Amino acid sequence: MIAIDPDFCAGLFAELLSFSRDEPGVTRAAYGEGEEQAHALMRATGLALGLKPECDAAGNLFLTMVGRDPALSPWMVGSHVDTVPHGGNFDGAAGVIGGLAALEALRRAGLVPTRPVTVAVFRAEESVWFPASYVGSRAAFGLLPPDLLDLPRADSGRSLRDHMAELGLRPEAVARGERLLDPTRIHGFVELHIEQGPALEATGVPVGFVTAISGSFRYRKAACFGRYGHSGAVARSERSDAVFALADLITGLDALWGTLEAEGRPATITLGEVTTDPVQHSFAKIPGEVRFCLDVRSTEPAVLDRIEAVLAELVATIEAARGVRFVLGERTGSTPARMSSALVEALSGHARRLGMPFRTMQSGAGHDTATLAGQGVPSTMIFIRNQNGSHNPHEAMRIEDLCAAATLVAHLVAEA
Amino acid sequence: MIAIDPDFCAGLFAELLSFSRDEPGVTRAAYGEGEEQAHALMRATGLALGLKPECDAAGNLFLTMVGRDPALSPWMVGSHVDTVPHGGNFDGAAGVIGGLAALEALRRAGLVPTRPVTVAVFRAEESVWFPASYVGSRAAFGLLPPDLLDLPRADSGRSLRDHMAELGLRPEAVARGERLLDPTRIHGFVELHIEQGPALEATGVPVGFVTAISGSFRYRKAACFGRYGHSGAVARSERSDAVFALADLITGLDALWGTLEAEGRPATITLGEVTTDPVQHSFAKIPGEVRFCLDVRSTEPAVLDRIEAVLAELVATIEAARGVRFVLGERTGSTPARMSSALVEALSGHARRLGMPFRTMQSGAGHDTATLAGQGVPSTMIFIRNQNGSHNPHEAMRIEDLCAAATLVAHLVAEA
Repeated sequence: MIAIDPDFCAGLFAELLSFSRDEPGVTRAAYGEGEEQAHALMRATGLALGLKPECDAAGNLFLTMVGRDPALSPWMVGSHVDTVPHGGNFDGAAGVIGGLAALEALRRAGLVPTRPVTVAVFRAEESVWFPASYVGSRAAFGLLPPDLLDLPRADSGRSLRDHMAELGLRPEAVARGERLLDPTRIHGFVELHIEQGPALEATGVPVGFVTAISGSFRYRKAACFGRYGHSGAVARSERSDAVFALADLITGLDALWGTLEAEGRPATITLGEVTTDPVQHSFAKIPGEVRFCLDVRSTEPAVLDRIEAVLAELVATIEAARGVRFVLGERTGSTPARMSSALVEALSGHARRLGMPFRTMQSGAGHDTATLAGQGVPSTMIFIRNQNGSHNPHEAMRIEDLCAAATLVAHLVAEA
Repeated sequence: MIAIDPDFCAGLFAELLSFSRDEPGVTRAAYGEGEEQAHALMRATGLALGLKPECDAAGNLFLTMVGRDPALSPWMVGSHVDTVPHGGNFDGAAGVIGGLAALEALRRAGLVPTRPVTVAVFRAEESVWFPASYVGSRAAFGLLPPDLLDLPRADSGRSLRDHMAELGLRPEAVARGERLLDPTRIHGFVELHIEQGPALEATGVPVGFVTAISGSFRYRKAACFGRYGHSGAVARSERSDAVFALADLITGLDALWGTLEAEGRPATITLGEVTTDPVQHSFAKIPGEVRFCLDVRSTEPAVLDRIEAVLAELVATIEAARGVRFVLGERTGSTPARMSSALVEALSGHARRLGMPFRTMQSGAGHDTATLAGQGVPSTMIFIRNQNGSHNPHEAMRIEDLCAAATLVAHLVAEA
């Protein structure tokens, strides 16, 4: 009988919280103190469970339960333990703790799976720290472009390379493409993760199996430049108002998004940061500058292309109409990933046998699973019902829902 | 022969610049060091010209040339010498320097006007410092509501009362409504001021006579509250995105503004400051909050009413559609003011006789002249051609255009 221990899980979350509280919410910077302490906690927990630890050049941690047939390629489960600034305690950590809880339950039940099972603790998944997707998991496969080691961390301004070196890791080996993981030697990958939207909570279902992960394009340092002027003294037709221009851009993108929504095409469009220049802006001035970031996501490459084309048209139209200039800045992005339908089917079978309600769904957010799927590893994710979204101080998750997801993982890896 | 001395004017501007440069631009805080030094400079200049100085409880300065008939009520010319932060050197100061230059030219020509002529140097005209209009000129007439003495200055956070007391002024007398100026004892008021828009420059005319001054309504600390969430994981219909909501508000107000423009009704609508929460916002979060200010102006009370009604409708509609909440905060405002058509006609006559091109126009910006006009003092303004707007570091003005305006003032006051 496989029974996940809720106290095992709750205890680990409480320990994480104890060293990473940063009101409002929780902060564990990628390659920072919080992530480092979380890795140490997971390593110690794995050792106590008799798991074999391995660490790669980029600091990704792998904790392996030996299987009955060591020649077989391992199952892998896991996620990340960094958070966004002032985020919640569950985004990322739930996948690692859920994986460890599954192995703890197997061990306690005296079950040794046929294949080895590895809990992966990836580094630097939250791209708010270094402006790139999937830094840790890409490095684990030797896939991180070396120039990304020069990226500055948002809070410190110091490079990814510096931060790695500071922790005793080996950025040169990362740059050379040294890898611990071989995608052809991973039987399958499952990432447990809180759902980052309200769909499961709204429909009263504890878990969702993910069929696709969104790709994205992003402009993190975009700006619109107009012309400052007296707020009362320049006629509408004579203005170059950066804020009105940005409002046009947003409502234009929103109109397209409404059309896509009506067509049933998946997409999200977000401008998370919008700021006029705090030095020059003033109540009585037409704003001559506004900075913003743009994050566009879809599981369908054609939808991303369509939004990007409309973005370019809108920029040109608004520049001409309002006498402003948009500078979108550097573009980053990621490719949508398809999940393994065989894995989703296997998990669905276990859920049915356990009498556990489930649904399938797409992930609007990016996840390390996309890296593994992109390398041909059969992969999926189990989303866990969560009450308040993610990337915010109010993330919530019932421990019993995490236990439900971990139960499915334990059955999956115990089976073959 | 009345001949304004351009070097007299240029020298005073250079002295002002020498102590108030604050790159980019110029800063002279109301009741701050810059305004104080500027008052001292104007006082010393007036004394050198033989003018009689008087200072009221609020620190407004009056420099009077004695007329041939001391029983007659005086002409008054003048403006203010504070600036917005990182503003230009001409907004305000041009009106004081132009007034002094007119009296200097009369004196040099040996002309003594029939009536006394007073150059007024008002305090605290730029409402970016204390969130209220016409602080100095209202106090000069004993009209400043006493509770405004509690207003904090934007930079220091200290009250208007404190700042007055620090300079040795008498805030208690201001609170009591003590006044130096009696509106029934001012023959007429003329304020010289750079045009704050591009109309004169665009049409090649050096001066404009103002027929009306805009009133306004303003929300200086408005906000829209939505709900933070993961940028990729919440469907369009489930979001409460504060930035998209604000974009709806802006485009809604802009649509109304376009209609008003087509109808020939004067208005300006400006959101000079727009900022998501720098602590909680993030690239990967739906913005749950955006702060902004709103400044709406018109010379027609009915237009202000119409815009305010549409604002209320838009707020209600957007709140319902997007699940957000607008909190507009404290409303301030001012009443539109009509200028004296007799004064405009008199100035027009002088301009025609001098062969000086001129036009009539409205002021979208507010000015101390509105206070005097509101008290029944026959008043107008002379706008001076200016190349780069105002309230910005690039304010420009040709000294010969200021001299043209001062020439008109000198002829006006010399005549009767």
